[in-house]
Amino acid sequence: MLPIRKTAKQGKRGILERLDAGEIVIGDGGFVFALEKRGYVKAGPWTPEATVEHPEAVRQLHREFLRAGSNVLQTFTFYASEDKLENRGNYVAEKITCQKVNEAACDIAREVANEGDALVAGGVSQTPSYLSCKNKTEVKAVFQKQLEVFMKKNVDFLIAEYFEHVEEAVWAVEVLKESGKPVAATMCIGPEGDMHGVSPGQCAVQLVKAGASIVGVNCHFDPETCLETVKLMQEGLQAAKLKAHLMSQPLAFHTPDCGKQGFIDLPEFPFGLEPRIVTRWDIQKYARKAYDLGIRFIGGCCGFEPYHIRAIAEELAPERGFLPEASEKHGSWGSNLSMHTKPWVRARARKEYWDNLKPASGRPYCPSMSKPDGWGVTKGARELMQQKEATTEQQLKELFQKQKI
Amino acid sequence: MLPIRKTAKQGKRGILERLDAGEIVIGDGGFVFALEKRGYVKAGPWTPEATVEHPEAVRQLHREFLRAGSNVLQTFTFYASEDKLENRGNYVAEKITCQKVNEAACDIAREVANEGDALVAGGVSQTPSYLSCKNKTEVKAVFQKQLEVFMKKNVDFLIAEYFEHVEEAVWAVEVLKESGKPVAATMCIGPEGDMHGVSPGQCAVQLVKAGASIVGVNCHFDPETCLETVKLMQEGLQAAKLKAHLMSQPLAFHTPDCGKQGFIDLPEFPFGLEPRIVTRWDIQKYARKAYDLGIRFIGGCCGFEPYHIRAIAEELAPERGFLPEASEKHGSWGSNLSMHTKPWVRARARKEYWDNLKPASGRPYCPSMSKPDGWGVTKGARELMQQKEATTEQQLKELFQKQKI
Amino acid sequence: MLPIRKTAKQGKRGILERLDAGEIVIGDGGFVFALEKRGYVKAGPWTPEATVEHPEAVRQLHREFLRAGSNVLQTFTFYASEDKLENRGNYVAEKITCQKVNEAACDIAREVANEGDALVAGGVSQTPSYLSCKNKTEVKAVFQKQLEVFMKKNVDFLIAEYFEHVEEAVWAVEVLKESGKPVAATMCIGPEGDMHGVSPGQCAVQLVKAGASIVGVNCHFDPETCLETVKLMQEGLQAAKLKAHLMSQPLAFHTPDCGKQGFIDLPEFPFGLEPRIVTRWDIQKYARKAYDLGIRFIGGCCGFEPYHIRAIAEELAPERGFLPEASEKHGSWGSNLSMHTKPWVRARARKEYWDNLKPASGRPYCPSMSKPDGWGVTKGARELMQQKEATTEQQLKELFQKQKI
Amino acid sequence: MLPIRKTAKQGKRGILERLDAGEIVIGDGGFVFALEKRGYVKAGPWTPEATVEHPEAVRQLHREFLRAGSNVLQTFTFYASEDKLENRGNYVAEKITCQKVNEAACDIAREVANEGDALVAGGVSQTPSYLSCKNKTEVKAVFQKQLEVFMKKNVDFLIAEYFEHVEEAVWAVEVLKESGKPVAATMCIGPEGDMHGVSPGQCAVQLVKAGASIVGVNCHFDPETCLETVKLMQEGLQAAKLKAHLMSQPLAFHTPDCGKQGFIDLPEFPFGLEPRIVTRWDIQKYARKAYDLGIRFIGGCCGFEPYHIRAIAEELAPERGFLPEASEKHGSWGSNLSMHTKPWVRARARKEYWDNLKPASGRPYCPSMSKPDGWGVTKGARELMQQKEATTEQQLKELFQKQKI
Repeated sequence: MLPIRKTAKQGKRGILERLDAGEIVIGDGGFVFALEKRGYVKAGPWTPEATVEHPEAVRQLHREFLRAGSNVLQTFTFYASEDKLENRGNYVAEKITCQKVNEAACDIAREVANEGDALVAGGVSQTPSYLSCKNKTEVKAVFQKQLEVFMKKNVDFLIAEYFEHVEEAVWAVEVLKESGKPVAATMCIGPEGDMHGVSPGQCAVQLVKAGASIVGVNCHFDPETCLETVKLMQEGLQAAKLKAHLMSQPLAFHTPDCGKQGFIDLPEFPFGLEPRIVTRWDIQKYARKAYDLGIRFIGGCCGFEPYHIRAIAEELAPERGFLPEASEKHGSWGSNLSMHTKPWVRARARKEYWDNLKPASGRPYCPSMSKPDGWGVTKGARELMQQKEATTEQQLKELFQKQKI
Repeated sequence: MLPIRKTAKQGKRGILERLDAGEIVIGDGGFVFALEKRGYVKAGPWTPEATVEHPEAVRQLHREFLRAGSNVLQTFTFYASEDKLENRGNYVAEKITCQKVNEAACDIAREVANEGDALVAGGVSQTPSYLSCKNKTEVKAVFQKQLEVFMKKNVDFLIAEYFEHVEEAVWAVEVLKESGKPVAATMCIGPEGDMHGVSPGQCAVQLVKAGASIVGVNCHFDPETCLETVKLMQEGLQAAKLKAHLMSQPLAFHTPDCGKQGFIDLPEFPFGLEPRIVTRWDIQKYARKAYDLGIRFIGGCCGFEPYHIRAIAEELAPERGFLPEASEKHGSWGSNLSMHTKPWVRARARKEYWDNLKPASGRPYCPSMSKPDGWGVTKGARELMQQKEATTEQQLKELFQKQKI
Repeated sequence: MLPIRKTAKQGKRGILERLDAGEIVIGDGGFVFALEKRGYVKAGPWTPEATVEHPEAVRQLHREFLRAGSNVLQTFTFYASEDKLENRGNYVAEKITCQKVNEAACDIAREVANEGDALVAGGVSQTPSYLSCKNKTEVKAVFQKQLEVFMKKNVDFLIAEYFEHVEEAVWAVEVLKESGKPVAATMCIGPEGDMHGVSPGQCAVQLVKAGASIVGVNCHFDPETCLETVKLMQEGLQAAKLKAHLMSQPLAFHTPDCGKQGFIDLPEFPFGLEPRIVTRWDIQKYARKAYDLGIRFIGGCCGFEPYHIRAIAEELAPERGFLPEASEKHGSWGSNLSMHTKPWVRARARKEYWDNLKPASGRPYCPSMSKPDGWGVTKGARELMQQKEATTEQQLKELFQKQKI
Repeated sequence: MLPIRKTAKQGKRGILERLDAGEIVIGDGGFVFALEKRGYVKAGPWTPEATVEHPEAVRQLHREFLRAGSNVLQTFTFYASEDKLENRGNYVAEKITCQKVNEAACDIAREVANEGDALVAGGVSQTPSYLSCKNKTEVKAVFQKQLEVFMKKNVDFLIAEYFEHVEEAVWAVEVLKESGKPVAATMCIGPEGDMHGVSPGQCAVQLVKAGASIVGVNCHFDPETCLETVKLMQEGLQAAKLKAHLMSQPLAFHTPDCGKQGFIDLPEFPFGLEPRIVTRWDIQKYARKAYDLGIRFIGGCCGFEPYHIRAIAEELAPERGFLPEASEKHGSWGSNLSMHTKPWVRARARKEYWDNLKPASGRPYCPSMSKPDGWGVTKGARELMQQKEATTEQQLKELFQKQKI
């Protein structure tokens, strides 16, 4: 068995140092879904005020990902831009200011990162300002404000993630790039490209040109689909003779039936996704495929629990030469079942068994696929929305009515 | 909206005081499965040394259940009997003695219970000693040893849970009963009864006669099946003119395809159960049905995460008059989605939507049911095992081979 | 390979001669479903005027069942009682009288039976008269009228089939018995018994006492469920120390989700049942299981096509010593695929392959089970109906409304 | 209700007269699958010697399609080329020569066509000669021989169908074209194109250039996929500024999980396809979609039963102004259920019900999709085969072994 390694072998090295040396960097999992189930985040707004309200819960989740093998702890600053928090202001008490939420997020991440070989990444994501058609200056100002906290707290590098429009992502990268720190950029798009129809290859090219050293995708689609999208990015970069590291942080949900806008449009989002949760074995296949594709920053997003991250670390342990701390509590491919009292359970203590298992849903009244809701269906409606002509609530409703037929 | 209540309205009252007054008592969820996913428990052995190794992780999980509405925090002492821990001794370091594990479990549970309106319940479960045919005196000695810790730490009441044989459960109740504290007893059986063929009704009668004030089932089967089993217990007690409070702590997995020994025999156990995980809405239906059946101690077992317990508390909030703390982060029946930017997601902010949703598995290559492994299939093999004639490893293997055909 | 046999080895022998000698008698399949698909029967009324309108189509179907191995050709007189045909009178032209339909049915069946080793069985089934509460005399008169035709045409024996109430079935047997010909009686019930709650065991006892030499079930449930029901009949007869031959003619649809009244209440009835159609391999398993249970009159009902009947004859060919004529065009267990050009199709030319195949539905948006419609759900409504208090259209509608909630 | 029409309104008109006038022409369904189930065709060889052995069975099937609305009766000459019949010679008796089979097929089709408004189409399909790499002259000679019979029997037009390679299809069209009769040509390909990688658009162009007046697809894929392929053909023709009538004759099986070579490679082929059978409502959707796409020759292939063809005729009855004869026995959209005794069955007598029904499979142990077998998976293997280097049995086996991993 490979040794377990808890801390850096030598002094902690930067994200680009690692990637440039060909090392595998393991990301963490999604915080909003995990903390929603634990009782600290509200589905719908998905904002991270828990960093101030319940730091112990955020700290514990960071710690679990670290134990599972994460080399990057992302500050829990998803949707923590001022415009978003204000937008959801009804429940954010006065003293929970945007700045405090962001600062606390940095402090907690750093505290846990210091317990092992992990870097802290400050993260920004798409803003309400962009969606409501504010201009470039205004949108950039929102990112600037978050960046100030990240600089004050001296995070190790920056991630612009969860962007549906490459235009906004490019603006984010431009802001972050000014910091002098390495910048990664991921979009929540599928093979069809961004909401304005820009292809994954083109998105990657624009992001790298804007200054991103690492590009890829996160959220919205299952591992299989995300890898397909990163592959298109890779091909786009090659065609443009550009170089960048590749990154992938998919959902831990099976979503073969998604439309262009991903799992949001699935009827099960966000409170009926359970039967779609991927197994640890699904993740091992994902990690291997991602690695074979040349991706070296491999993590997860919504739905990823610590054991999913551990599955990445275990699958790629031969390449890395060590196992993560949490593997103390996990036998590879179910090996611990060999001690079970029942012979047929002992028979499950092997790779072939789990590799080939097609797990039943236990739900005979439920189908295997859903039809996504939404404008996804009618091109006309989507185009209208994209032309930003459909801004009023009334217009949206009418569009929706019409296409429901 | 109903008010949120964090602590006891009046001084904290005992378990029987509450149940005798007709109150609803909400249990907690299963620790071994939740902590396995978080990286602190090993599947297979399923032992609770984390109370000593990583108390912060155990404490956090208790806290989440408390926030979700649990009125009972069970000490994390599952499989913490000396014989079991020794059995799995290879990885329990010298200083992690059985006593330390049990004591730490009590301390952590008490610490968190003090933060709200929850009682601490010391728990014992089935022992290797019984399965390897040790006699009554030896088996009772094992329980006695655990009880000593519970008395020293002064838990509020005791639970004998996860018994497959009523004979052993009765022995456990007899030991626990000597303490003078209230005793609850649950078996991990389905409608077919215990492994020796004793019917649920008969099991309940024997447990109450042995001194249990609360009886019911836990683990091994899904909510639907567990309620069916408790109903049979209820009928057995009525027929025998006995009175007891009823309790139900099922799996949070759909298992319509289980055989007599429950989810252990499903091919997906324990690493491919994801598609079977129940939704919060499934749990609301369970809570309502349990309540209507007259069950007043309603909780969960393996697979239950904090948000599942919150679903019990929210479903029964009208009866109780208040919501749990974690409902600060949860709109009833998806109400928070009414703020979503997409009209079709806003359309999900209502009870009818989630009540009627048949969630897709996202797994077109997987069926909805599995055929359980194991002796369940051949009566002959099971009978042999029950006659304890099939004790050697070799005999087991041969039996297994034969019936695979 | 076993020889193919087209005609009787020795002179054609009667139904009881065969069964008393322990021979296997193979029934035919359901005519109304097969001819509906071919364009000669109307779903809803399900009446057999095709015997007069399109005798060539009826003759051809009989011939296909004969080739497939049927030893019994049932006259296509389902729902051909006068009250039923009148009831549906709008489309039965003047010259297509009840008598003509029944006579033509007998003539066609006899013509084809003469081409091989098959007997002609005249059949009667449940009547509108009974359902609309006519008295015993009136109901018996309906059967008497059909019997007259069967006697005139000299059928070989008689079958009273598709009865939901044993009371009516007994009346039918009593009428038929007067003819002096052997009488078989099958009910379209499941393990829960008839619509008045009489158990399968009790039904069998009453039918045998009324004079039936052969009893069993037909229609309404899948093969698995029908065998379960026949087993209960068998046990009932044994308990009553009565002797009779057993018969089984199930649906060729998988219906694990049926309620008490069978497939009629499934939402897919009658125009969306396709995904439930059983394979030839399912039928081979059924035939084997039926045989092992002691059933010797083995056939089918709605959904059975000629190839399903052939599957019975092929499965039981070793016991019978010969194959049916249509096996000229069928290699056992897919053996003809061994000539296929693709190696992976050739690999399907063996029993194990088809025995183990779990065929996909090709329908990712469809579930595997449905919830039956109907009064089946509320006991109250069913009881009302059974008390015959709910006779008016208006009352039915109100009941239906109420229980839809 | 629209009137039922049995015969031509005016004298019977030719295929091109009809199509040029914008009329809808309804094809028939697949004979080999239907007659296999009826007991007259052997799966594997799939040859049509039944025209000589059992003309009454072939005649009856033609008649059912005619009643259902078919305007074209294809001679049952599938795989009736001399090389194919010889190839399967072991069971074709001496007197059943290729010529006799083809002549009988023509006579039977003509006899039934005369009973209504249908044309007779002589059909040729792909040959073993081509697959075993015979040259153009030899392959053409095979078609020539079949054509001679069609000319002698004076069929109304000719169809070259079921070609996997456009090269062979072009040769067939060239031969048939010499007759002076109209020629239709369909390939059994999907959107990925023919086995040599020629796109559907290119296939269509080549076929039209070779002389086909009607082009399209048949067999191998479900209705949805076939329409997608015909659309690509249509686009190819438009790009090349060519004109031709379009034709579609898909499977009556749902095959969303097919690879390039269609349903042959599905594990369920050919004896476990039952759960994939499409409903009449699926066919109505197909007919409408085909019509909207501009296809005017609309029929079916394997799996199509008479009631599927009737569904085409009923869906397009408003456009055509009449219903087919078999609609005497079919109420539109289940309207006959309005006479049912149960109110919940009566509630199914409407379009919305059947349009929205997602029929359950009744098979909880079966998945909704399969993984196709075969070389489809490895490109290398397919390429080898295409290069015709893998001709020996031994080589095929090795390839198969290798890719099974």
